[in-house]
Amino acid sequence: MAENTRMIDKRYDVVIIGGGPAGLSAAIYCSRGRLSTLLLERALVGGQIVNAEQVDNYPGFPTGINGLELTQQMHCQADRYGLETVYAEATALELCGTQKLVSTTEGIYTARAVIIACGSQRQKLGIPGEDEFTGKGVSYCATCDAAFFRDKTVALVGGGNAALSEALHLSRFADRVIVIHRRERLRATPVVQEKAFATGNIEFRLNAVVTAIEGEEFVSRVKLRHVGSGEESYLPVSGIFIAIGFKPNTDFLRGLLPLDEKGAVITGDGMQTAISGIFAAGDIRRNSIRQVIAAAGDGAIAAVSAEKYLTE
Amino acid sequence: MAENTRMIDKRYDVVIIGGGPAGLSAAIYCSRGRLSTLLLERALVGGQIVNAEQVDNYPGFPTGINGLELTQQMHCQADRYGLETVYAEATALELCGTQKLVSTTEGIYTARAVIIACGSQRQKLGIPGEDEFTGKGVSYCATCDAAFFRDKTVALVGGGNAALSEALHLSRFADRVIVIHRRERLRATPVVQEKAFATGNIEFRLNAVVTAIEGEEFVSRVKLRHVGSGEESYLPVSGIFIAIGFKPNTDFLRGLLPLDEKGAVITGDGMQTAISGIFAAGDIRRNSIRQVIAAAGDGAIAAVSAEKYLTE
Repeated sequence: MAENTRMIDKRYDVVIIGGGPAGLSAAIYCSRGRLSTLLLERALVGGQIVNAEQVDNYPGFPTGINGLELTQQMHCQADRYGLETVYAEATALELCGTQKLVSTTEGIYTARAVIIACGSQRQKLGIPGEDEFTGKGVSYCATCDAAFFRDKTVALVGGGNAALSEALHLSRFADRVIVIHRRERLRATPVVQEKAFATGNIEFRLNAVVTAIEGEEFVSRVKLRHVGSGEESYLPVSGIFIAIGFKPNTDFLRGLLPLDEKGAVITGDGMQTAISGIFAAGDIRRNSIRQVIAAAGDGAIAAVSAEKYLTE
Repeated sequence: MAENTRMIDKRYDVVIIGGGPAGLSAAIYCSRGRLSTLLLERALVGGQIVNAEQVDNYPGFPTGINGLELTQQMHCQADRYGLETVYAEATALELCGTQKLVSTTEGIYTARAVIIACGSQRQKLGIPGEDEFTGKGVSYCATCDAAFFRDKTVALVGGGNAALSEALHLSRFADRVIVIHRRERLRATPVVQEKAFATGNIEFRLNAVVTAIEGEEFVSRVKLRHVGSGEESYLPVSGIFIAIGFKPNTDFLRGLLPLDEKGAVITGDGMQTAISGIFAAGDIRRNSIRQVIAAAGDGAIAAVSAEKYLTE
């Protein structure tokens, strides 16, 4: 048990760790099902999608909805059914018989079932302009944002399968897609590479890294450095997609649950993890598509499984 | 190839079979991703949920939304991105190389990827009053509708694990839950039975069948017949939950895809079926929780997988 935590003598049926769409959907289902439910959120309820000005692909909102508003609506929906929310970061998860102990920065909470929905973090380039222009030309998701770059020139950073899939997706919208990769060769499998090479409006800048993202209100150019020569140049673009991976927020689970090579939680049927009574939902799961609707679906399934677990 | 069908010389990237929440969500993702997409629906777009007066557990609508309205919004959302919809029933799915041929009552359509989202049908009792009072006291889903029966007396028909799970769920809302089962013993596993027996407000009427559902505007009583004696009686209830199973709409897939013992499609990661390029989403899948949000999540995942399949 972590030090510096108070023992809180309150037991729940379910503790949900993480207040993004997966956790909120689980919270709606658990609370509405009259399970005593605690939602733990370390920062602001809503998850990464709160930064999205406009979410166009969450089914049910034909003209789109603001990401913050969507998740606030979800939280409000769970509140209607008596959800309790505590703002604290989970630091450890331990078993005590069939009870699960969740250590947090605000104390320890116990529950018979736990739903882990802590999401993942985008790998960032860590360069000037990246944070400043996020949502203003900098994107980490082509499926989400490609439609906003119709007939424009965009850069895409990365060289793996996911990166080239994003490039192919972008090529159906953008006028030009310029793939920037720091090595001489791409990492993607040959068939995906061939498809990208055969796509007329996808270009490649290999042995190159982006060192800065610049613009006024929106991105207008990126600064490139050639890895060999060190030569610098500017590339005029309307947007830059960064596809260098994601890091699931699973540090506090190491040693407890089996994780895949990227650190994502491995789940089976019904969002069940390797430990009975512990479920995972959303972007923290292996092979998550990192979409709000899929995370929300996961959350509902995990909640139904948790209820079943508590019943049986 | 089925007879009496015209060959239609139009090829799509993706054909989606079924216009419920799973198919509609897939349609939003495929169309928005600029894949040429056809949605096939045999009756009315929306699926079973169109009959729900009020859907309270679809995340994003804190005060609930009408089932028909929700699915109309989804359809409208996909239309914005150029979805094509044809009202026809799929009668066969065949392979022709990597192309998939979908025979329908309106002709044959071909696509490289197919998403099967035809849903499932509730097993009905087939008794007087059942259809008439559906949504007015007759329900097939405790997770959806239990909250509408707070402090009331409800009947529940069925004796399997799913039925007793529904009874346990209902017991947290209703004043009394009366489980009606046609046999002398329940089919549910012992641990679930014990839990139900130990729940104070769950009662049992074994060797009994419901022969009619009666009321004025809403259900007010059900007619019972004892299986042994044939004796008839009335049970005053405010609602009746029918939990005797579901039948996936997979008759047209027999021989093509492996189905489970209930006829549901077996899927792996990313909603992939046993055949490359054929995906399944929603209530037609094995172990579906039969909730709109989960079906919509499935649909998005199937669409992302289909796009990936088309790319690689």
